[in-house]
Amino acid sequence: MNEIFTERDLKRLASFANVLWAEDHELPDSVLENLLPETWAFVAFSPPMSTERLRLSSQLKAILEVGGHFPATIDYSECFARGVRVLSCAPGFARQVAEMALSMSLASIRGLVPAHVAFTKGEEEWQGDYPSDFSLFGQDVGFVGFGSIARQLLQLLKPFGCRIRVTDPWLPESIIRAAGCEPVTLDQVMSTSRVIYVLATPAPENLGLISREQIEKMQPGALLVLISRAHLVDFAALVDAADKGKIQAAIDVFPNEPVPPDAVVRNVKNTILSPHRAASIRRERQAIGRMVVDDLEVMAKGLPPSLMQIAQPEIIDRRIGQTASTPAPKHKQ
Amino acid sequence: MNEIFTERDLKRLASFANVLWAEDHELPDSVLENLLPETWAFVAFSPPMSTERLRLSSQLKAILEVGGHFPATIDYSECFARGVRVLSCAPGFARQVAEMALSMSLASIRGLVPAHVAFTKGEEEWQGDYPSDFSLFGQDVGFVGFGSIARQLLQLLKPFGCRIRVTDPWLPESIIRAAGCEPVTLDQVMSTSRVIYVLATPAPENLGLISREQIEKMQPGALLVLISRAHLVDFAALVDAADKGKIQAAIDVFPNEPVPPDAVVRNVKNTILSPHRAASIRRERQAIGRMVVDDLEVMAKGLPPSLMQIAQPEIIDRRIGQTASTPAPKHKQ
Amino acid sequence: MNEIFTERDLKRLASFANVLWAEDHELPDSVLENLLPETWAFVAFSPPMSTERLRLSSQLKAILEVGGHFPATIDYSECFARGVRVLSCAPGFARQVAEMALSMSLASIRGLVPAHVAFTKGEEEWQGDYPSDFSLFGQDVGFVGFGSIARQLLQLLKPFGCRIRVTDPWLPESIIRAAGCEPVTLDQVMSTSRVIYVLATPAPENLGLISREQIEKMQPGALLVLISRAHLVDFAALVDAADKGKIQAAIDVFPNEPVPPDAVVRNVKNTILSPHRAASIRRERQAIGRMVVDDLEVMAKGLPPSLMQIAQPEIIDRRIGQTASTPAPKHKQ
Amino acid sequence: MNEIFTERDLKRLASFANVLWAEDHELPDSVLENLLPETWAFVAFSPPMSTERLRLSSQLKAILEVGGHFPATIDYSECFARGVRVLSCAPGFARQVAEMALSMSLASIRGLVPAHVAFTKGEEEWQGDYPSDFSLFGQDVGFVGFGSIARQLLQLLKPFGCRIRVTDPWLPESIIRAAGCEPVTLDQVMSTSRVIYVLATPAPENLGLISREQIEKMQPGALLVLISRAHLVDFAALVDAADKGKIQAAIDVFPNEPVPPDAVVRNVKNTILSPHRAASIRRERQAIGRMVVDDLEVMAKGLPPSLMQIAQPEIIDRRIGQTASTPAPKHKQ
Repeated sequence: MNEIFTERDLKRLASFANVLWAEDHELPDSVLENLLPETWAFVAFSPPMSTERLRLSSQLKAILEVGGHFPATIDYSECFARGVRVLSCAPGFARQVAEMALSMSLASIRGLVPAHVAFTKGEEEWQGDYPSDFSLFGQDVGFVGFGSIARQLLQLLKPFGCRIRVTDPWLPESIIRAAGCEPVTLDQVMSTSRVIYVLATPAPENLGLISREQIEKMQPGALLVLISRAHLVDFAALVDAADKGKIQAAIDVFPNEPVPPDAVVRNVKNTILSPHRAASIRRERQAIGRMVVDDLEVMAKGLPPSLMQIAQPEIIDRRIGQTASTPAPKHKQ
Repeated sequence: MNEIFTERDLKRLASFANVLWAEDHELPDSVLENLLPETWAFVAFSPPMSTERLRLSSQLKAILEVGGHFPATIDYSECFARGVRVLSCAPGFARQVAEMALSMSLASIRGLVPAHVAFTKGEEEWQGDYPSDFSLFGQDVGFVGFGSIARQLLQLLKPFGCRIRVTDPWLPESIIRAAGCEPVTLDQVMSTSRVIYVLATPAPENLGLISREQIEKMQPGALLVLISRAHLVDFAALVDAADKGKIQAAIDVFPNEPVPPDAVVRNVKNTILSPHRAASIRRERQAIGRMVVDDLEVMAKGLPPSLMQIAQPEIIDRRIGQTASTPAPKHKQ
Repeated sequence: MNEIFTERDLKRLASFANVLWAEDHELPDSVLENLLPETWAFVAFSPPMSTERLRLSSQLKAILEVGGHFPATIDYSECFARGVRVLSCAPGFARQVAEMALSMSLASIRGLVPAHVAFTKGEEEWQGDYPSDFSLFGQDVGFVGFGSIARQLLQLLKPFGCRIRVTDPWLPESIIRAAGCEPVTLDQVMSTSRVIYVLATPAPENLGLISREQIEKMQPGALLVLISRAHLVDFAALVDAADKGKIQAAIDVFPNEPVPPDAVVRNVKNTILSPHRAASIRRERQAIGRMVVDDLEVMAKGLPPSLMQIAQPEIIDRRIGQTASTPAPKHKQ
Repeated sequence: MNEIFTERDLKRLASFANVLWAEDHELPDSVLENLLPETWAFVAFSPPMSTERLRLSSQLKAILEVGGHFPATIDYSECFARGVRVLSCAPGFARQVAEMALSMSLASIRGLVPAHVAFTKGEEEWQGDYPSDFSLFGQDVGFVGFGSIARQLLQLLKPFGCRIRVTDPWLPESIIRAAGCEPVTLDQVMSTSRVIYVLATPAPENLGLISREQIEKMQPGALLVLISRAHLVDFAALVDAADKGKIQAAIDVFPNEPVPPDAVVRNVKNTILSPHRAASIRRERQAIGRMVVDDLEVMAKGLPPSLMQIAQPEIIDRRIGQTASTPAPKHKQ
């Protein structure tokens, strides 16, 4: 609770809503089911909302999840039929995840990690340049996926004057063009970019999308930043290409987390590794709480929510939730 | 030569100028002195232009240096009296140095280096946050110095929505305000910022400006990015404060370079070390050559140079050249 | 048809959809009712979709209106219950309306119209300034309403470095803050701004919101730009204040359109008059067609629309449609 | 005095300088010549600084003009030889002139003037569009000249996403490219642009540069905004093309000012006329005073000026001063 909600936001919440349960431990099923008939909004990490529970919830207007995904614990069809909005706090993580994507790419192309490690060992080269070094200014950049993280990252990249190509089959091209980017195929993203950001939401249709063949299309020394989900990439092929020095990689997400102690990926060269930390800033989590209270506040006034992402039937049909039954792809790390 | 000038730029140069000498090895004194009377522009790393040589150079209109500083090897007074412009390529390095400053600060506040090193050792914490982590979005940022690097860095920081305070005693406040920043004292920069960028040109008047006392004014966990010259900082105090965990540091320049093998700074905690690499990108060096040829081209047409920095008497009087006779401050690293 | 749809867009439409009717004259009721059972998307100016017709439309997924409003000719409750999205092309007009708002404000504060008229009469004053002239740079600006026009206008104002205060009771303050503006009350917008843009959607709750009392709070010589709907303003009080030289006005929308020939407003001083032309650019209308075809194209692929505005129940409940039964307020113009 | 200097700036000036003369009426020659030997800075509208007077001025470091041009009343060669900087306040007018250029172009392409005039006559067309109307968004725009006004205007145009082509023979192409524009020939500017801004400083080499032939290259209905000086344009040809409806024009500067009462230009169609008002905002004039005091203040500290434009010998050789002896071109208006 306190990680997400400031005292100020809790007070504000209490000023317009009757908070029925606000504890850090899980809500017992029987209590939940007692409270549902009088609840108009339900906020939880992965709200367990079965068909039955939704039928109990005659006042319910919205389910607000605070983990950053549309969880598989909700009967979405029933929600849509009943006019219950399902809201995700994912947009609240976009800033820090986009910042992490930029941070990892700059650290990689400017050689910060190897230069620091060499310095601590007394092996630094003064005013030296690495063959892998390049500047982000004016580069060809590719985005795989154009959701809220991509749009935030786009803002951060603006001052670098990059040419940005985007592939996103879920969007009309005009949205990409209106943002000043070029809509292209995945092939074009892979073959023309010096830096590629993998930002797409996982779905059955994009499992292993960035295959070994696609990775082979990358320019020598180009960088792939894997930030949304390992699901999208042939991970073994990625690790292989980086280790052989064909490309650079910056990886925040892995096929199996935690990564096994002896995984190959731990010692791969030309790679920056990050243990799924893109959204991990303690102070920023309170932004999620503020977003939740803000949207509850306007809903309490009879207005639609305007900050959280509203579940759309078509997207729910395509996505994989964090706890979805679809088995995660098996990869040797 | 080839590092700085592309073949295309050399051809372009030859199309409007008669190139008298273009070799990588040093020009022998006697040859130089023979060529000077017919030379209208002299391009070199640290052009050795004594009073006597300037008197030989009756056609000379400009001296162009390609190292990034106004060197102490030139008799500036004689140049000013004769209407010979001295031009520095320093603005040509601003982009990559500003990019490095941003890269080091993001790597530091997002914990990239320790997270990567822990990962390679099997000691990573999944989805973990460090107490030192924070986001750059909306932060209080301070600049010490507001020259070409600071102005470029300002552009890169724009999308983060930071509040930027600047101290620069060499400029009218209105220039700082017009750039959307707040002109303040050094004290205010030190005490109010979460990230401080040290970007000022060294001069006798700013030796050790950021003293131990100033460093003690920093907020707990704030970051100091030392990018222009160690001359400005009480280096021992900086290393001390970072090592004790009071602040974070990101350091690209050191009092004595190369740093001695046993220097304390090599093992200081909470610090990213970089061996003077902010301007070291091979490909970007050709931008310097392009800038030189561009300015020569307009000068050949009877127009003033417009890309390189023109030496101004007042600034020359105050600066310390790279090879200036002023002894470098002695610090224990 | 040809005003909205380019030949290219019509071809594209035909490539993924079976177009059942595409004529400029109105669709006869009987034909419409025959076609509805097999229609998945219905595009029209003010689509007449009663409860009965919706019940006929078992395949219908979306109603797309191309006039720029949510019309009162649709049974929205039935649409929401059936999962039929109602989409408005309003966002497609935001650019040109925002441009008009900026154009009218600049023309007003720089005195373009009186200076031109004086010039044609031989009464111009050379290099003269009017007491009402001011620059937009750095001004205090106020927005009444923060929808798609306001957000577009905000982009156009960015380079002027204005301080922008916004009042919008339908939105959480955090949205306004995240856009770099200041959420305030209407009183504050009225009393602190040099330029006020009236941009809110009309609703019963904001009829005459900008009352005579509010207009009296305006600073001497400040400008009110009336661009969304006259409904929001005590029009007689506005005209009065401008005519007396207390304020400047720029007006694109009027209580009764067309304005009667002898209306007072035709000769009011310190005012720029525009006969509801903010969205009237022939070439830009084809952007509406492109938006419609773009959203139909992604819907045909089983994806949600992403360009047009999706009707939300709460907003529909509050708005006044173009043909709503609520009688327009009576004002003496 | 009071138009340019606020009381606050005058106080500030007195705090670091001994003001020898500060009156609105002209300084008598004998008084001036008495004061010159002890003067280090001389501020005036068109400072009369002959060779003889400069020789009297042994302490003089800078001449600061406040009219916006490098006047022909100064012996520049003598200034350059003595190390006396000549400073122009021209950059202080850039913001309001660029704003005027944008204002006039938007008013023109959105038809504000004819729509307003028709409205006052009861001849308005509701929601009507004129064939000449277009939006600035995404247009092809051309700049003739790329000095301080052009660079400021470029900032104002950024949110419109225009493609901007620039011709400026005095600058290296890389400066134009670095600003995100395309360096082209005058022919290309004239033939590809929907809006052309004439912004160049007059010089003998660009008299009548935009000839009848060049004007004939313009696209039908394109707009020419004449803002810097009529000197650059075949004025009769411009007026002719606008009157015949081939192009639109927006004109702030004229061959002979004041324009004779019976000049043809007064009744030309498709044109917005402005009697040289681009820089005429009373309140903004105090920005000139602030700039002068700011630069004097840093110079008093032994630093170079950083806000005003420093005369460069090559540019002085090419320019025409406001009171230059070169006779103004004769054109029939």
